[in-house]
Amino acid sequence: MANNIERPLDLLNQSKGKEILVQLKNDKQLVGTLLAFDIHINIVLANTRELENGEIKKHIGLAFLRGDTIIYISPSQV
Amino acid sequence: MANNIERPLDLLNQSKGKEILVQLKNDKQLVGTLLAFDIHINIVLANTRELENGEIKKHIGLAFLRGDTIIYISPSQV
Amino acid sequence: MANNIERPLDLLNQSKGKEILVQLKNDKQLVGTLLAFDIHINIVLANTRELENGEIKKHIGLAFLRGDTIIYISPSQV
Amino acid sequence: MANNIERPLDLLNQSKGKEILVQLKNDKQLVGTLLAFDIHINIVLANTRELENGEIKKHIGLAFLRGDTIIYISPSQV
Amino acid sequence: MANNIERPLDLLNQSKGKEILVQLKNDKQLVGTLLAFDIHINIVLANTRELENGEIKKHIGLAFLRGDTIIYISPSQV
Amino acid sequence: MANNIERPLDLLNQSKGKEILVQLKNDKQLVGTLLAFDIHINIVLANTRELENGEIKKHIGLAFLRGDTIIYISPSQV
Amino acid sequence: MANNIERPLDLLNQSKGKEILVQLKNDKQLVGTLLAFDIHINIVLANTRELENGEIKKHIGLAFLRGDTIIYISPSQV
Repeated sequence: MANNIERPLDLLNQSKGKEILVQLKNDKQLVGTLLAFDIHINIVLANTRELENGEIKKHIGLAFLRGDTIIYISPSQV
Repeated sequence: MANNIERPLDLLNQSKGKEILVQLKNDKQLVGTLLAFDIHINIVLANTRELENGEIKKHIGLAFLRGDTIIYISPSQV
Repeated sequence: MANNIERPLDLLNQSKGKEILVQLKNDKQLVGTLLAFDIHINIVLANTRELENGEIKKHIGLAFLRGDTIIYISPSQV
Repeated sequence: MANNIERPLDLLNQSKGKEILVQLKNDKQLVGTLLAFDIHINIVLANTRELENGEIKKHIGLAFLRGDTIIYISPSQV
Repeated sequence: MANNIERPLDLLNQSKGKEILVQLKNDKQLVGTLLAFDIHINIVLANTRELENGEIKKHIGLAFLRGDTIIYISPSQV
Repeated sequence: MANNIERPLDLLNQSKGKEILVQLKNDKQLVGTLLAFDIHINIVLANTRELENGEIKKHIGLAFLRGDTIIYISPSQV
Repeated sequence: MANNIERPLDLLNQSKGKEILVQLKNDKQLVGTLLAFDIHINIVLANTRELENGEIKKHIGLAFLRGDTIIYISPSQV
């Protein structure tokens, strides 16, 4: 399950095209399909939804997210 | 719909000339037409409006926005 | 109106000698004539006034403003 | 017990494949198996659980964690 | 009055040996004679006084001030 | 007592293998034996204990501590 | 009194071996004898005392202080 992860970015590479959960520093969460990321952990999500306390609050669609607002990213949460 | 996005900045490139929504770290949002951006995600918007809780609070017009104040940018929200 | 802006700093270049509004991270605003800026978005304003809730609170005159305290700069607001 | 640690990252190297506790700046803690890390202290955990006041609040599974949200990492806590 | 300012640091150069007001991020202000500065906007003031709400709270004398705590510097305020 | 300290890191070098107190930005303190540090002031402590108001709250054991969470480090406090 | 200060670090150089006051971002102050500093304004103090509202709260002795926690340093305050 956790095979083939030698560097942290390997996990993001394996998650392209899949749903991920992004925990933000402002206590909110975004869920969406990972389309792209860079070394700053800037990411692009498709079909993005904003969650608060586990409930969907807003549908955002495509979104460019700045890496410095992220605490963690989890591909297996959703 | 999400084709042709290999790197995060590709989404911003495709959004030039279109309306985008910018979620700021201070809980406010800006809506406007994306004219330009750079690698720091500094952006210039035309016809910018400031929103609070989804309502327009102020018309700002042209605006230069510093990248480090941004949480996410969404071209499809508006 | 928004012609000739290819990079974000182009807007600041076109605003030299004109009145701009600067929204700070501490919720205050500065209004003044843009004299100079650099790539860190450090700027110098002449005839600077500090606003709170849209009202002039203080006349500051010439001011050097550090870029990292800025949310946005708008030449058309004033 | 603390042998062979000449540089701080040596401790993380020795902890690969083992359970670690990660204390975050937002007062929460993550526990999981360390799979990978880089020089920014970005890390990947498997079987991640989020703790509050020592109690498990959430099972997160695989997670990419940004280094700048971390206070300390302890391999011997768990 | 605002002549000869092509780059932001020109204003600081012209203010050497003069009284300046420094607005800090923690809502306090320092007033003193500018002796030196560098590209990080670290500055040295002589005869420094700390103000709160426009009133002198403390005489500090010579002071080295870190640039990253500054919002703006004004030579004409005092 | 304070001899042979020409650069700040000399103090940390002299403290290797000794107990140090680390004051964190979040008002907590860590006490432990300094095993290693780097130029970012990332450090590894052995036998780490977390203090609040001078009292031991938790035994952490080995710990990797990120430098950017530190206010000061004192070898002579303990 | 303020002679020979061309660059900000000159003041710190002249303060070596003397008592200085360090104002921290967390509203506390440290007083001690300056032994060493570097370009990040990391400093080492001997005989350090922590002040709150001008009163000594704690004797810390030797201390390595991270530069990014400092607002100002004053050699003439004590």
